[in-house]
Amino acid sequence: MGIVLGANRYGKAETRVFRIVRDTDRHVVRDLNVSTSLSGDFAAAHVHGDQGQVLPTDTQKNTVFAFAKQVGIDEIEDFGLALARHFVDDVGPVTGADVRIEEYAWERIADHDHGFCKRGPDVRTARVVVSPDGTTVGGGIRDLVVLKSTGSEFAGFLVDGYTTLAPTHDRVLATSLTVQWTYAAGEGHDWGAAYDAVRRTLLDRFTRVHSLALQQSLWEMGRAVLETVPAIASIELVAPNIHHIAVDLEPFGLANDGEVFHVTDRPYGLIEVTVEREG
Amino acid sequence: MGIVLGANRYGKAETRVFRIVRDTDRHVVRDLNVSTSLSGDFAAAHVHGDQGQVLPTDTQKNTVFAFAKQVGIDEIEDFGLALARHFVDDVGPVTGADVRIEEYAWERIADHDHGFCKRGPDVRTARVVVSPDGTTVGGGIRDLVVLKSTGSEFAGFLVDGYTTLAPTHDRVLATSLTVQWTYAAGEGHDWGAAYDAVRRTLLDRFTRVHSLALQQSLWEMGRAVLETVPAIASIELVAPNIHHIAVDLEPFGLANDGEVFHVTDRPYGLIEVTVEREG
Amino acid sequence: MGIVLGANRYGKAETRVFRIVRDTDRHVVRDLNVSTSLSGDFAAAHVHGDQGQVLPTDTQKNTVFAFAKQVGIDEIEDFGLALARHFVDDVGPVTGADVRIEEYAWERIADHDHGFCKRGPDVRTARVVVSPDGTTVGGGIRDLVVLKSTGSEFAGFLVDGYTTLAPTHDRVLATSLTVQWTYAAGEGHDWGAAYDAVRRTLLDRFTRVHSLALQQSLWEMGRAVLETVPAIASIELVAPNIHHIAVDLEPFGLANDGEVFHVTDRPYGLIEVTVEREG
Amino acid sequence: MGIVLGANRYGKAETRVFRIVRDTDRHVVRDLNVSTSLSGDFAAAHVHGDQGQVLPTDTQKNTVFAFAKQVGIDEIEDFGLALARHFVDDVGPVTGADVRIEEYAWERIADHDHGFCKRGPDVRTARVVVSPDGTTVGGGIRDLVVLKSTGSEFAGFLVDGYTTLAPTHDRVLATSLTVQWTYAAGEGHDWGAAYDAVRRTLLDRFTRVHSLALQQSLWEMGRAVLETVPAIASIELVAPNIHHIAVDLEPFGLANDGEVFHVTDRPYGLIEVTVEREG
Repeated sequence: MGIVLGANRYGKAETRVFRIVRDTDRHVVRDLNVSTSLSGDFAAAHVHGDQGQVLPTDTQKNTVFAFAKQVGIDEIEDFGLALARHFVDDVGPVTGADVRIEEYAWERIADHDHGFCKRGPDVRTARVVVSPDGTTVGGGIRDLVVLKSTGSEFAGFLVDGYTTLAPTHDRVLATSLTVQWTYAAGEGHDWGAAYDAVRRTLLDRFTRVHSLALQQSLWEMGRAVLETVPAIASIELVAPNIHHIAVDLEPFGLANDGEVFHVTDRPYGLIEVTVEREG
Repeated sequence: MGIVLGANRYGKAETRVFRIVRDTDRHVVRDLNVSTSLSGDFAAAHVHGDQGQVLPTDTQKNTVFAFAKQVGIDEIEDFGLALARHFVDDVGPVTGADVRIEEYAWERIADHDHGFCKRGPDVRTARVVVSPDGTTVGGGIRDLVVLKSTGSEFAGFLVDGYTTLAPTHDRVLATSLTVQWTYAAGEGHDWGAAYDAVRRTLLDRFTRVHSLALQQSLWEMGRAVLETVPAIASIELVAPNIHHIAVDLEPFGLANDGEVFHVTDRPYGLIEVTVEREG
Repeated sequence: MGIVLGANRYGKAETRVFRIVRDTDRHVVRDLNVSTSLSGDFAAAHVHGDQGQVLPTDTQKNTVFAFAKQVGIDEIEDFGLALARHFVDDVGPVTGADVRIEEYAWERIADHDHGFCKRGPDVRTARVVVSPDGTTVGGGIRDLVVLKSTGSEFAGFLVDGYTTLAPTHDRVLATSLTVQWTYAAGEGHDWGAAYDAVRRTLLDRFTRVHSLALQQSLWEMGRAVLETVPAIASIELVAPNIHHIAVDLEPFGLANDGEVFHVTDRPYGLIEVTVEREG
Repeated sequence: MGIVLGANRYGKAETRVFRIVRDTDRHVVRDLNVSTSLSGDFAAAHVHGDQGQVLPTDTQKNTVFAFAKQVGIDEIEDFGLALARHFVDDVGPVTGADVRIEEYAWERIADHDHGFCKRGPDVRTARVVVSPDGTTVGGGIRDLVVLKSTGSEFAGFLVDGYTTLAPTHDRVLATSLTVQWTYAAGEGHDWGAAYDAVRRTLLDRFTRVHSLALQQSLWEMGRAVLETVPAIASIELVAPNIHHIAVDLEPFGLANDGEVFHVTDRPYGLIEVTVEREG
């Protein structure tokens, strides 16, 4: 039974490109972290060390910088599409490209023309995959940290011999969301408007849904996104449960009616849910 | 020549306490990271292993949680003062306490009563030191990331045999500020108003000062803070220079007139400046 | 077109369990980070908030601790198998379990019975997946950082209009390996011996292969592992290229014949290769 | 009351220089992270923006790379001395220099001539300070993670109204040491031999001392270092207490006689101790 090369790809990760649009005195800034990865028939590079078909990762980095000028950076989905298509269309051996982009938000300081302050912690993301099977475009957001100080329960759960958790009808619910969605085929979508709608809908549903479990909140959040943004085909939510443990203050003669909590780091619950359109 | 015990102290670092004020349906939340460190004559604990004078660090943690209920958390400077004084006044062997607090900001989601979203990346800090020499209270802010896309120069600098840097009259200036200030003696200061004024002044000066060097920006920022907030005796600014390097696009037949930059991680310039009142 | 629940799972991530085997004065210690994730029909929990079928993540954590005593921790693959099977076999609604384990290495200090020093940076990993389709066991290693100070080339590569990289016949090759392999079906494998053989083979091949590209090194490393360890069915290597850039010392009147390098953080090449058995 | 410039300094942090000594086929590699900071009268740079006295931080970086060739890198203390003296002696306005160096350890793979594997997690450090008051040289080690699975107690401690901790006569003691020592004046010390002796002594004392508290262990470790290495004037040990909490297994019908522990992240005890020579 022989040994063969399986799936493989290569690219340049985390090119940190900063773009100033300075056509007028009122500058616009775009701050990206771009990772590109190319696939194709690169067997010779692996098996024989022949690099004749391999476009250097250094060139991929250069391309990102050049495109920041040549193509410009408006919506990151479009920038990813331009890069991915270029690699597949213009570089002979390349048949597939996976481009991931993170965008860091800057807000104007007192509406100043060229002074900015970083806003976070949440980061907008995009992913474009071009392959022989077609093109998919995804949007996303990570590190969106949200919390409800009430309106969250966890009770009526399955109990086995290792269960010690007490049910509760009032707890703190907190998570740091990583959300990724896929757009329906076609590229005429208004990426920016969709992103804004998703972010707003996630926050709204997280807040307003009376939560019987983080699973339920995530389902309602994902469902509302699909209802609100027709261009989105499916959405995946990954949510660590940032446990806030009520501290027992009785030894100190104090009551703790949901007022004082210990925020823990590890371990943490981790819920992963995909919501999609039927069929 | 004998060997002796020198300076020593011990405490509990990074107690993550979360406090909900739920007197009405409109909850207020406070999210802190509290570190306490105690000093005194603890020679016996070190040299003889006798712990009779040592209040466990576990107790210090408990005290933080208990005080979150008993004293409550309003301004973090006051919470630090309550903790530091308690340890020095109420725990026999303790003669000094150093309490450091970080506060993470949460903002209401659509003005909701109990739904919140984390805001960053900047973090408010405080430090209270009680010692036999008296009490000092400090405020601070860290990870305040700011950027100017123009209005910054660096030229006319000293040149030696190892200098290759070209002078520039238009560059990107970016930094992640860690700022700590010390209040004048006395505790009747309005900590929250002072913090707001410092943050606002730092942003304003960073933006408006035409910068001939990061040093100059920092000096002007510090000076303005002291002018604006009489309660502050001195201020220290620590500022990594987040280098944005203009990318050479000529090999690709493109001009780069201050539009495309590579953001680098390391190495970075690091400027440290204290501004204080005379005498 | 309706909206439906897609793939979902939930679990407890990063339970940090430390186990001492103290049957004799010569203690053995095992230091693990265990993440469990369960799948099954949990639609009711999401859609109706009904937790009746949901074993709390807190219980999963408890189970890890209990099994550390009850089952004991010998090879992490066996510990993962015990946990995964328990969840699938003993917890009604659970039809699948994904258990990931990291093990941190401690070495005896001067062969002492109960004094240890942490050894790294590399970490041993394992992953056990039990599903309706069967059971797969994987081993792995991450953060294995290796470097060759010569014996590495990169030349003859594809050149396009964005290529500026010069070919080189002598460079530093450095990477931080994340490697994961899958065992052939069946569980009678000697996990520990296999792990040792993989680690030794990876280091040997990385060192001895004259590298014409990182791709080639990875292929040769993967191939040698499959040749050496029959129990392994396939192996995936993920390798960031930690670029060591030769510094231009000419401005200072100095030659740099491969002696002085700048180690960069970002961007970095990223090579991903799977090597597998035919058929 | 005027506002004045206080203490200030500036430099280049984290220059990552890698040096290969390739005089023979058996290469030697040195992997450093160098931070330099300069002081002097830089008031004009701050107050007037006049950079005429300011050697750019970029030049400081260049100097590190040039010295890696020109001076070479043997012991990091000597490399730091060469850099610090150069800045103070050769750069007019500079009157003080603070040079901090970290060195990452690489070990040969199977005694190979040019193949290496990174060893950690502990890192060797050095600090050289040249000022108008003279020169001080310090050595250090950070992230030296050690653990005793028995032979550690914590009992007989002070109890107040916030104390709930139970005394114990057998616990796990674990810490991640950051240790810094200062050499006696004079520079003829054998830095490498001293470093080896300190590391060995720290490990030996941590292991062999029956610990009544982390404080006591640290004192004994520091004392033994001063006894063993006459060239060292004082030593500071900073030790987070990595708490290993015995898990209560009774709910599951299991005993836990010091066998199963939960390793926690935060909060953690933090002990800081300096041991020095009398007078």
